[in-house]
Amino acid sequence: MAAKIETRLHVDAHIEAGTTLGLDHAGAHFLRSVLRLKPGAMLAVFNAQDGEWLARIDGIGKGWCSLEVTELRRLPEPEPDLWLVFAPIKRARLDFVAEKAVELGCSLLQPVFTGYTDVSRVNSERLAANAREAAEQCERLSLPLVRDVISFEKLLADWPTERRLLLCAESGGVKPIGEVLQDIRAGDPQAGREPWAIMTGPEGGFTKGELDALTKLPFVTPVGLGPRILRADTAAVSALACWQAVLGDWEKRPPDRSDA
Amino acid sequence: MAAKIETRLHVDAHIEAGTTLGLDHAGAHFLRSVLRLKPGAMLAVFNAQDGEWLARIDGIGKGWCSLEVTELRRLPEPEPDLWLVFAPIKRARLDFVAEKAVELGCSLLQPVFTGYTDVSRVNSERLAANAREAAEQCERLSLPLVRDVISFEKLLADWPTERRLLLCAESGGVKPIGEVLQDIRAGDPQAGREPWAIMTGPEGGFTKGELDALTKLPFVTPVGLGPRILRADTAAVSALACWQAVLGDWEKRPPDRSDA
Repeated sequence: MAAKIETRLHVDAHIEAGTTLGLDHAGAHFLRSVLRLKPGAMLAVFNAQDGEWLARIDGIGKGWCSLEVTELRRLPEPEPDLWLVFAPIKRARLDFVAEKAVELGCSLLQPVFTGYTDVSRVNSERLAANAREAAEQCERLSLPLVRDVISFEKLLADWPTERRLLLCAESGGVKPIGEVLQDIRAGDPQAGREPWAIMTGPEGGFTKGELDALTKLPFVTPVGLGPRILRADTAAVSALACWQAVLGDWEKRPPDRSDA
Repeated sequence: MAAKIETRLHVDAHIEAGTTLGLDHAGAHFLRSVLRLKPGAMLAVFNAQDGEWLARIDGIGKGWCSLEVTELRRLPEPEPDLWLVFAPIKRARLDFVAEKAVELGCSLLQPVFTGYTDVSRVNSERLAANAREAAEQCERLSLPLVRDVISFEKLLADWPTERRLLLCAESGGVKPIGEVLQDIRAGDPQAGREPWAIMTGPEGGFTKGELDALTKLPFVTPVGLGPRILRADTAAVSALACWQAVLGDWEKRPPDRSDA
């Protein structure tokens, strides 16, 4: 493919060669008014089910765009099933966490109100928009699910017990995350293919009651992130990176984009 | 210690019990006008040489404050010698990298202009101020050094060859960071006590010439950070977290602050 790939867009519709895709208003506006693309321009469209495909702009106007799918660019592939469960924090840092969580391969973002959470609402649409943009930029094939914020009690009540949870705990005598992850991998080299979650608290940390409730659950493993007090966003990004490095898919390399 | 610790301040001066410390204008202003503290209020003062000490506000006025050092709170302790060498990025993301690098135990921040760097200047004072604030908040005893930005050529010409460099490389057939760090640790459990550096490129990555120049150097080990294209700031934070988890001091826990 010599043609320049102008951008990369996630589409919900089924993608296959020869089909024509109609973009929604936002997508069409982005291509026409932001990137100023014309018919004939090439882009990549993707989703988790169909992988990534080359597509040519067939027609484009105010609020509409039709794409002709030409050829497969990248096959769908399994991705880690790693949730991030986090106490919401201030907006700029929350935007940051959403972006980084997507780049670090999170499959689902679940905000949860904990005792020391000092944010009263979470804009799920904003979170989802940040997640989508990050996925389009980082070469992911999937979009993470973004759940509405729930209470700590509901989180525990509804937890799928087969999903293991790494709890980032600032206090208490817990093992360091590196040692915990290495031990898990040593015990089962395929452990990263199971469902996992990482949970981080608000800036104030978890309440003693929350820590007690969490640490007695069989699927919870508390981990330490060292001697410095990490901000909530730093803890989330750090734990996700460590998980990917030890249990995740970081043995893979980015797709070759010498065609782009 | 029943007394509430109002805040934590880095001071350059030598700290020992019974001495009186005079704060600079900025420090005095922060205590008086931001925190609104009065004589008798307790805080913690620290530096890498003397550790952390309790201090009482002796006198405070417009632009001045004298502190009486009362007792040792925490002994000085060795910290990892880990540099972050990074291509400067846009301001908000640079502020973020500085804050995270401090929380993740960097000893020095070195911005470097690379071929694809699209930022023309770096505000070292701003970087240093962010670093100081982050150190005061994250329970560190040291402040990282913040160097002025230099050229890629000067970086290599002046490099202290005993300092090993982990190069975060988006392209090329390199080993994943987790495997590389584990192999280094397996070969020498004390490897983390040596001088190290982590290097990240700009959003556009390194030029081919830069990658070729770096990878032929004996002290450079290129590493991969997985199949998703990470933003420059994500790569820096992720690599620092992985280094700390495997070679760094994350077997330690935060100091007990039940007195605070």
